[in-house]
Amino acid sequence: MSAPKKVVLAYSGGLDTSIILKWLQTEYGCEVVTFTADLGQGEELEPARKKAELLGIKPENIYIEDVREEFVRDFVFPMFRANAVYEGLYLLGTSIARPLISKRLVEIAAETGADAVAHGATGKGNDQVRFELAAYALNPDIKVIAPWREWDLTSRTKLLEFAESNQIPVAKDKRGEAPFSVDANLLHTSSEGKVLEDPAEDAPEYVYQRTVSPEDAPDTPEYVEIGFERGDAVSINSVAMSPATILTKLNELGGKHGCGRLDLVEGRFVGMKSRGIYETPGGTLLLEAHRGIESITLDRGEMHLKDELMPRYAELIYNGFWYSPERKMLQAAIDASQEHVTGTVRLKLYKGHVRTVGRWSDHSLYSEAHVTFEDDAGAYDQKDAAGFIQLNALRLKLLAARDKRLKP
Amino acid sequence: MSAPKKVVLAYSGGLDTSIILKWLQTEYGCEVVTFTADLGQGEELEPARKKAELLGIKPENIYIEDVREEFVRDFVFPMFRANAVYEGLYLLGTSIARPLISKRLVEIAAETGADAVAHGATGKGNDQVRFELAAYALNPDIKVIAPWREWDLTSRTKLLEFAESNQIPVAKDKRGEAPFSVDANLLHTSSEGKVLEDPAEDAPEYVYQRTVSPEDAPDTPEYVEIGFERGDAVSINSVAMSPATILTKLNELGGKHGCGRLDLVEGRFVGMKSRGIYETPGGTLLLEAHRGIESITLDRGEMHLKDELMPRYAELIYNGFWYSPERKMLQAAIDASQEHVTGTVRLKLYKGHVRTVGRWSDHSLYSEAHVTFEDDAGAYDQKDAAGFIQLNALRLKLLAARDKRLKP
Amino acid sequence: MSAPKKVVLAYSGGLDTSIILKWLQTEYGCEVVTFTADLGQGEELEPARKKAELLGIKPENIYIEDVREEFVRDFVFPMFRANAVYEGLYLLGTSIARPLISKRLVEIAAETGADAVAHGATGKGNDQVRFELAAYALNPDIKVIAPWREWDLTSRTKLLEFAESNQIPVAKDKRGEAPFSVDANLLHTSSEGKVLEDPAEDAPEYVYQRTVSPEDAPDTPEYVEIGFERGDAVSINSVAMSPATILTKLNELGGKHGCGRLDLVEGRFVGMKSRGIYETPGGTLLLEAHRGIESITLDRGEMHLKDELMPRYAELIYNGFWYSPERKMLQAAIDASQEHVTGTVRLKLYKGHVRTVGRWSDHSLYSEAHVTFEDDAGAYDQKDAAGFIQLNALRLKLLAARDKRLKP
Amino acid sequence: MSAPKKVVLAYSGGLDTSIILKWLQTEYGCEVVTFTADLGQGEELEPARKKAELLGIKPENIYIEDVREEFVRDFVFPMFRANAVYEGLYLLGTSIARPLISKRLVEIAAETGADAVAHGATGKGNDQVRFELAAYALNPDIKVIAPWREWDLTSRTKLLEFAESNQIPVAKDKRGEAPFSVDANLLHTSSEGKVLEDPAEDAPEYVYQRTVSPEDAPDTPEYVEIGFERGDAVSINSVAMSPATILTKLNELGGKHGCGRLDLVEGRFVGMKSRGIYETPGGTLLLEAHRGIESITLDRGEMHLKDELMPRYAELIYNGFWYSPERKMLQAAIDASQEHVTGTVRLKLYKGHVRTVGRWSDHSLYSEAHVTFEDDAGAYDQKDAAGFIQLNALRLKLLAARDKRLKP
Repeated sequence: MSAPKKVVLAYSGGLDTSIILKWLQTEYGCEVVTFTADLGQGEELEPARKKAELLGIKPENIYIEDVREEFVRDFVFPMFRANAVYEGLYLLGTSIARPLISKRLVEIAAETGADAVAHGATGKGNDQVRFELAAYALNPDIKVIAPWREWDLTSRTKLLEFAESNQIPVAKDKRGEAPFSVDANLLHTSSEGKVLEDPAEDAPEYVYQRTVSPEDAPDTPEYVEIGFERGDAVSINSVAMSPATILTKLNELGGKHGCGRLDLVEGRFVGMKSRGIYETPGGTLLLEAHRGIESITLDRGEMHLKDELMPRYAELIYNGFWYSPERKMLQAAIDASQEHVTGTVRLKLYKGHVRTVGRWSDHSLYSEAHVTFEDDAGAYDQKDAAGFIQLNALRLKLLAARDKRLKP
Repeated sequence: MSAPKKVVLAYSGGLDTSIILKWLQTEYGCEVVTFTADLGQGEELEPARKKAELLGIKPENIYIEDVREEFVRDFVFPMFRANAVYEGLYLLGTSIARPLISKRLVEIAAETGADAVAHGATGKGNDQVRFELAAYALNPDIKVIAPWREWDLTSRTKLLEFAESNQIPVAKDKRGEAPFSVDANLLHTSSEGKVLEDPAEDAPEYVYQRTVSPEDAPDTPEYVEIGFERGDAVSINSVAMSPATILTKLNELGGKHGCGRLDLVEGRFVGMKSRGIYETPGGTLLLEAHRGIESITLDRGEMHLKDELMPRYAELIYNGFWYSPERKMLQAAIDASQEHVTGTVRLKLYKGHVRTVGRWSDHSLYSEAHVTFEDDAGAYDQKDAAGFIQLNALRLKLLAARDKRLKP
Repeated sequence: MSAPKKVVLAYSGGLDTSIILKWLQTEYGCEVVTFTADLGQGEELEPARKKAELLGIKPENIYIEDVREEFVRDFVFPMFRANAVYEGLYLLGTSIARPLISKRLVEIAAETGADAVAHGATGKGNDQVRFELAAYALNPDIKVIAPWREWDLTSRTKLLEFAESNQIPVAKDKRGEAPFSVDANLLHTSSEGKVLEDPAEDAPEYVYQRTVSPEDAPDTPEYVEIGFERGDAVSINSVAMSPATILTKLNELGGKHGCGRLDLVEGRFVGMKSRGIYETPGGTLLLEAHRGIESITLDRGEMHLKDELMPRYAELIYNGFWYSPERKMLQAAIDASQEHVTGTVRLKLYKGHVRTVGRWSDHSLYSEAHVTFEDDAGAYDQKDAAGFIQLNALRLKLLAARDKRLKP
Repeated sequence: MSAPKKVVLAYSGGLDTSIILKWLQTEYGCEVVTFTADLGQGEELEPARKKAELLGIKPENIYIEDVREEFVRDFVFPMFRANAVYEGLYLLGTSIARPLISKRLVEIAAETGADAVAHGATGKGNDQVRFELAAYALNPDIKVIAPWREWDLTSRTKLLEFAESNQIPVAKDKRGEAPFSVDANLLHTSSEGKVLEDPAEDAPEYVYQRTVSPEDAPDTPEYVEIGFERGDAVSINSVAMSPATILTKLNELGGKHGCGRLDLVEGRFVGMKSRGIYETPGGTLLLEAHRGIESITLDRGEMHLKDELMPRYAELIYNGFWYSPERKMLQAAIDASQEHVTGTVRLKLYKGHVRTVGRWSDHSLYSEAHVTFEDDAGAYDQKDAAGFIQLNALRLKLLAARDKRLKP
């Protein structure tokens, strides 16, 4: 790979990406464009602008954008249509944000004539893979620079020395090492590393940042009604809202009741297992509610097929293959199932737990007329069941007859 | 089907199966053998013996058995190795008991020279299918009688008239109709029908029989450690126990903390949707813990394959195909993955919610040496990630290059 | 089911459906509408009109239609996009025609105010299921009459007696029983029953009707080039043709060279196994060519996903679930993969065998620059493979290290 | 990776691996152990011994073994139980040999105290991945050396210079470059590269080494009967034979009749597409016959599940994951299905084509009594089909009723 001339950097404004910014300038002598996105991580963006300017970035090379609506509408919601969970439990909060960031990096590169993009993910994790696969899938000729895999700033001390010798301001509270590493966006907060590295030990309460402890949650349950149209949430308690507003509101509700905490050991794409603490309050409500509305509006055939396809779909997102053709194939199948996923689900939130307690829809396939224990007025002829069973049994009988024949 | 001469009846001792018993004698003039099983449903069995005798069953034709250990060891545990849930949520508590009952019915038929078996499931539900597919798979020549599909006792009034005119005692509290229908065994209690038929309405609290309301659960969390060997639970808080004892104990713990309640609309095999309230306190703990121990002892490859196979496996059990060759194939695959699923999981139970908060095992694949944020002493070479990503990206690049070529 | 008042009958003009026609009039006293379709079965349709008139059908109640283009365009081609084969070998020639016939039956019922449709499939086969599931999926209130399951004309003698006593002309060659049963359309001819019922015995040559024996095929190979656009065949030897014309032409070519014969024992949906002789000359060429063009235009990810989904897709079509939502989901996924399946495949036909010997496309993903054994000018860095392998190996190493640790 | 001290080299005795041998000695100054295996590639092994001795390998460090029986019994046959084909067509002849070679390399390393193994696969292909994943899965601490990814002998000229300057004899016919690259073992011969790199061009006849051209095959068909026990071939024309003997004999038969040629473009694991010419005469017969015997001895449920699992299984083998736990899980499922796959299949071989024309077995599930067009003496009640269809249709009716309700 020839040296990059102009690089678009995913820039948070924090110490690490500021060091990367400087390192790119120093190492490659290249022009740097910064991209700072509001994905709902809950941090001010303007300080990032100031810091970039301080580090010598030209104003026209500083991109700061609020992408929350795009994030929820085009990434989070399509994923939730699939009820995607990785390894049975993880709601993919980090995984789903990466393709959007890479997309904007590549687009800004095209706009600014940059030949490279750069990110601050390390060489051990999944994020490097997600950033880079997405970038290459969108522009096969882009260069991707991953400083953590290249440089020799392999200790905290060396990083701080580099910062100091390059006039990068270091906040006092950043001098020491953080007790764990955090990633956050509108869907979730993840924490991992350091104090969390022993999976036998419970995570300390101070790790949790977005949810109260269930023990501290209100003593009274709260009920919330989520409205859906074609598989996507469109309202809370009958108030229509935009995608990002809905997720924000669900985060508040879930967080208040201590919902959506997860302590997980997961298998990374790069081959090792890691332990993460995830808080996905709104997403946890959304998943439960989406399953709830599907339970009355999806036919058994499509629901079971979705359930079978889901683990693969989740794995693709986890591994960074959002822009792969097979993810798009699965999405086409999933979206084809959502035409009638419209209606309302009532959830009960209480002390860390969320549960569907009611659901209704004009599109419902539930037929009280058929299922009733009362007289069904001929909707269903119980005698049909005899033939149904006989023909389902026929192949089993032929198998049993063979066994009897061979081992009488 | 020619008329049966001798029938083994799945007999609970309750009013309905007593009517069936009498109806079989009357309708077919056949000898009846009763089979009453203790599956952990929480009812005395001796009254069933007395009632059978009262209805004229010869003592040698009355079979009363405690099958709880067999139930958990040979049915529940193999199913939990798969983390089986139907339609994302249902732990298959009713489905998994039917194959065992059918197995004993068919075996007793062979022992007593009976040519038929009979059950008390209606023509609208899944249980008829499960009973009958299992029976036919075990003896292709057996006759199965399903009185609810045959007789004309189509109302409560007619049933009670039949009982009275046949000297079947009717308890006072059975005169009126039950407000809903219940099935129970060591794994779960299910309730459905009547007052539960509107899925928009929350289930009344009196429906729940085995779990306290989360609001009434203790205000202090409880921690429990479940030990596993080769995928099966073998101890609670370091005390070794038999399979049925473990499930009994987990039921107590889960029930006390309000865990394992589920309000679900599900797709029945016979084609309609139904709404059920399930209480699976012990099973809910077991599933969470099994996933927890798998998270450190299963490789990503086998875990993901398991997750993909699971919905099919659960569907087979739900639909009554326990004895099908494809269920056995899936079981072989699942069991092959459990050799190292040995270790301990620590659960936190609190107000209806259960969560893994620690797990450890001699068989763990989690390698702190690899995953650490600290110096890993060469366990992992971050530079490998570059090649890993490049080759994973290659096909995506070729796709992107095609797009660029065709639509420049 | 209440008695039908007006029935649309799938009418071939042959003896069996003429008897059904009369039986419907006699049994139900209902008005009959006939629907006779040209699906490419190779029979004149006008005799069916005459025969229907002779049996008293009003001219406005006689529907005769050439549906060959619709059949290939909307049913055969979508299915071939999936490379669908049932049980590894069967190209689903009969299965795929049934949904189209049912669709027209239901549509004609709506046009003519009929409340029922009727078909001539027996109670043992798959076709009854396919006809009826399709009809019910398109109109949940339609009645479906399957005379073979209802009447007592259970022997050839009784059928002929019924024909004679109802003035139905019986051709001389129909007096005796046919030595086997045949179904044909533009995609295939299937033969089964009677002389073919012993699967140990080779099918007699006279069973084959659409393909010459490979031994009698030309001694010189023939090459044919099939052009594709977005997954569908659009030309033969550079001549653009309509879907039905292409399939007709491929049938001629395949038939001439003895291609597409299949002798199969298959598992029917109703539970038994049956043996069929299939001739699918054009379809066999089409499948080979479609795989050929996909081999250079589909990415590995989408191809492998398609391969995994295919057996389910084929099973759905075989079992009659063309109009199910899960078939549509799978179709959406498959179709999403076909955008670039455009190009040309060269086949060699010789003595019963067909083989791809060349393929090219502007949409090709094959990159000689990457794969070449010669100098690749940096297209591919072999060193990347080391990292790729290391990280793919990591989980295997961790597994092996565990084994070593536990059993040193 | 520290430098290896003693290396076990997969050694063919040819020029390339002789250069590698010398290069290992030169580059690392390490002791070399050679392993030369007879996998049925059709070459004498003793010249490899002489050459190794000539290059200074100590006699006790020269391993020459006939592993043909192990190859077929423990690798080829298990794979054929799955009917494994990659991307619809490739019988995995190269892929399945690599795990065996790696296994012996690692075992010999343990026996001889070597700390590394080496292979002669290039950095562009799949074989490097297969060799190395297998080696690491069997010994996580082994070093694997892939000279083609390391050295600078990047042209034919440099290789020959290295050979000359190191006294490696170069046969005259090896001076020029081969027109294509070949791999062979008892299962297949593959050819790729150079003259074969344009997938639009038919492969020249001289590429084929193991099969006659169909045009040159006998003008008379030949019939062969293959006997199976529990899924594996055990006899040909009623003569019992060992696994390797059977495959050898089937190769003769298939080769004589021009069967098993394949011209394929495939997706490599490393991300690019390549074009290969494969000859798998015996394997092609074996696959057809195995499907044939399964068609009467496997239940529909297990067969369809096998068909769905197969592409994943084939992909795992192709990608080099033979020793992964998920391949073993799938193998357990597949093997569980083969208990009754016992019986005989009659094949017709003619001019490049092979077709099943008869199959019989004591374990057959085919029931003429059920399927017959004649009177079935009550084996099957056609009226059962009505109920079977009604309940299968119910969910489709509910869907259609919803559509009608919403869009009247």
